[in-house]
Amino acid sequence: MTKNVEELKKDYADLLIRSGLNLRKGQRLAISCPVECADFARLCAEAAYEAGCREVIMSWNDDALTRLKYLHAEDDVFDSVNPWEKDFRDIVSEEGAGWLAIYAEDPENLRGVDPDRISRAQKAHGKAMEKFRQREMRSEFPWCVCSVPTDAWAKAVFPDMDKEDAKACLWEEILAACRVDGGDAVQNWKDHSDELQRHVQILNEYNFKELRYKNSAGTDVTVGLPEGHFWAGGEENGADGRPFSANIPTEEVFTLPKRDSINGTIVATRPLAHNGTLIEGFSFEVKDGKITDVHAEKGEQILRDAISVDEGASYFGEVALVPYDSPISNSGILFMNTLFDENASCHFAFGEAYPNIYGAENMSEEELKERGANFSMTHVDFMVGSSDMTITGITHDGEEVPVFVNGNFAF
Amino acid sequence: MTKNVEELKKDYADLLIRSGLNLRKGQRLAISCPVECADFARLCAEAAYEAGCREVIMSWNDDALTRLKYLHAEDDVFDSVNPWEKDFRDIVSEEGAGWLAIYAEDPENLRGVDPDRISRAQKAHGKAMEKFRQREMRSEFPWCVCSVPTDAWAKAVFPDMDKEDAKACLWEEILAACRVDGGDAVQNWKDHSDELQRHVQILNEYNFKELRYKNSAGTDVTVGLPEGHFWAGGEENGADGRPFSANIPTEEVFTLPKRDSINGTIVATRPLAHNGTLIEGFSFEVKDGKITDVHAEKGEQILRDAISVDEGASYFGEVALVPYDSPISNSGILFMNTLFDENASCHFAFGEAYPNIYGAENMSEEELKERGANFSMTHVDFMVGSSDMTITGITHDGEEVPVFVNGNFAF
Repeated sequence: MTKNVEELKKDYADLLIRSGLNLRKGQRLAISCPVECADFARLCAEAAYEAGCREVIMSWNDDALTRLKYLHAEDDVFDSVNPWEKDFRDIVSEEGAGWLAIYAEDPENLRGVDPDRISRAQKAHGKAMEKFRQREMRSEFPWCVCSVPTDAWAKAVFPDMDKEDAKACLWEEILAACRVDGGDAVQNWKDHSDELQRHVQILNEYNFKELRYKNSAGTDVTVGLPEGHFWAGGEENGADGRPFSANIPTEEVFTLPKRDSINGTIVATRPLAHNGTLIEGFSFEVKDGKITDVHAEKGEQILRDAISVDEGASYFGEVALVPYDSPISNSGILFMNTLFDENASCHFAFGEAYPNIYGAENMSEEELKERGANFSMTHVDFMVGSSDMTITGITHDGEEVPVFVNGNFAF
Repeated sequence: MTKNVEELKKDYADLLIRSGLNLRKGQRLAISCPVECADFARLCAEAAYEAGCREVIMSWNDDALTRLKYLHAEDDVFDSVNPWEKDFRDIVSEEGAGWLAIYAEDPENLRGVDPDRISRAQKAHGKAMEKFRQREMRSEFPWCVCSVPTDAWAKAVFPDMDKEDAKACLWEEILAACRVDGGDAVQNWKDHSDELQRHVQILNEYNFKELRYKNSAGTDVTVGLPEGHFWAGGEENGADGRPFSANIPTEEVFTLPKRDSINGTIVATRPLAHNGTLIEGFSFEVKDGKITDVHAEKGEQILRDAISVDEGASYFGEVALVPYDSPISNSGILFMNTLFDENASCHFAFGEAYPNIYGAENMSEEELKERGANFSMTHVDFMVGSSDMTITGITHDGEEVPVFVNGNFAF
């Protein structure tokens, strides 16, 4: 007996609470969610209360109202964040509540909006949410990003379908990518996470000094890795020792690059939906870790603003490996949603680094910087993978080890 | 050329912004709204920005998540309010932002919930929102309550219709009650408000010492009115002198009773949807202004809890006159929503008084109490009107003046 899609949605909600957040009895749960996805938020709340959640707290958003604000509000409102919004995130992150982000933005929601407003709002938000973001990057609370279809996002992915068909198709792709197949979704996810851990272990044993990327799209770059770095993927351990999965789906294994040790050209192979704008056909020139030149066929100003929100935004914070033959990639679909597209492709992020350095929990910001960790109020993933991507690892002994061949893991 | 219903909804949104709140350029607008009614909130935001609104801020709610919380959250969460929710209301009320409450609760959303949880939550909410409520009662910011259909509310009103028909019918009733007829809705509302002002003037000229109510439902009560009280209705003046309309629709003219001067029996003639529970067939015995006995055929515990949240909750704060032949009443529909049912019927409210006393803005709480104003963290309207209601006004000279005869104004 197969489950219908409504039952599968419940399984997905349950997976997010149990594997994504690993919510414990008595813990609070904050859900950020588009109002359009209220049905799914309710399923998540039910699953949370079933797991003994103390209280579910909502942080709603709405693309349409966000767009109206960007178009019509008074100009200086974009220079600050309302204090209760900051307090909300500070309080729930400090107490260690679970944070479920239902991310389902219309990829072009802010098309035509004054980029200066977007840039200022992003700076104000980054500054106000600094504590929250630091706790998130250090896994001081369990957090999980997931996505469910909205009308606009589904139509952007499947422009030739009518709204209902597009949403149904997008649901199908999401559930498949999350291994929600009607069986034991939690066990499926565990199996998948174990498989990611296998690559993590191999990479950690090699302890590469640097990675060299090359493909026909034009990427030709050497990426240094910090002393004492480690790779992670799938389940990770929170600061309290409880495992959680920060992204569902995820196909990546990732670590941080050494801040001043990236040199070469990086060419994006998928568009980036950032701040409600689609950035397409873009590339970076990088010298000693810093982006020195930017080109984009579309959305260049938004991209230039994004790498300029602070000093650290023009340096890198993540290097992630994803096989070209991953399930999301094999779907052949361009999701225009980072949670999916980043898991279809090797990627980097500019901005804040995940502190994937052994002993980081006992290091000061200064010590982490010395090791090569980048700090910023932003963290933006973008995709570079391709079917002909070659990545070579260089060990501290100078040995060259094939890591990726023809877009896939060599081991 | 007549307007279609989507155009009429725009007219309603525009009416709320222009006549309800009389929003001024540069003012912020906070909208409290069920997530299910996001479409209508967006229309209101558009109208607000068109009027020069500085920023629209949302306070979303969701009946389903509220019910899940009441059923499953940990018990002590009902004893406090999250600090950011209090701060939000304190900040926007202090700056004098407009407050639009889109009120569309499922009248029986909390059926079967532990009444103790509801009672404690109401107390905690009342205490946390004290400043906000005081500013609201004193019209220190423009506020307006309106309603739009939700699935659950429409089905409660029209149980025999399917969901879409029920919502369409409820929209029709709402638009009619608000005089949104495709013509100039703002002018229609002004004309209606002027008509209410005619009764206000007559009542203020009589300056009654007390009102005596009697009908066959069993109401037999004398209601004293404070020295220096005044009646109001329709448009009122905010503390800044700008007129606004706190309820759209409204059919009432109202003032406050003298706290210790109500004696007799008050019998409700319509059910009361309060805190997600329907209270039916209820009556109060009142002595020297205080409710001394309560009876309800359904929901008695919720009602007893409601009049016990604090000392003032068992005294009265509003006396309102509505003709039995008002349009909402003539629709013959039981809305199970106070905004509508209170405007189909003469009503009282227990709890906090509107300070409808000349010079109140310069009086301390003590001075207002001395005049007979009641203070409480709650304010709950309930309906007493009927087709045979007789209300007699007694002037300070002892003259008896018919105010209501057979349920309608005698003048």
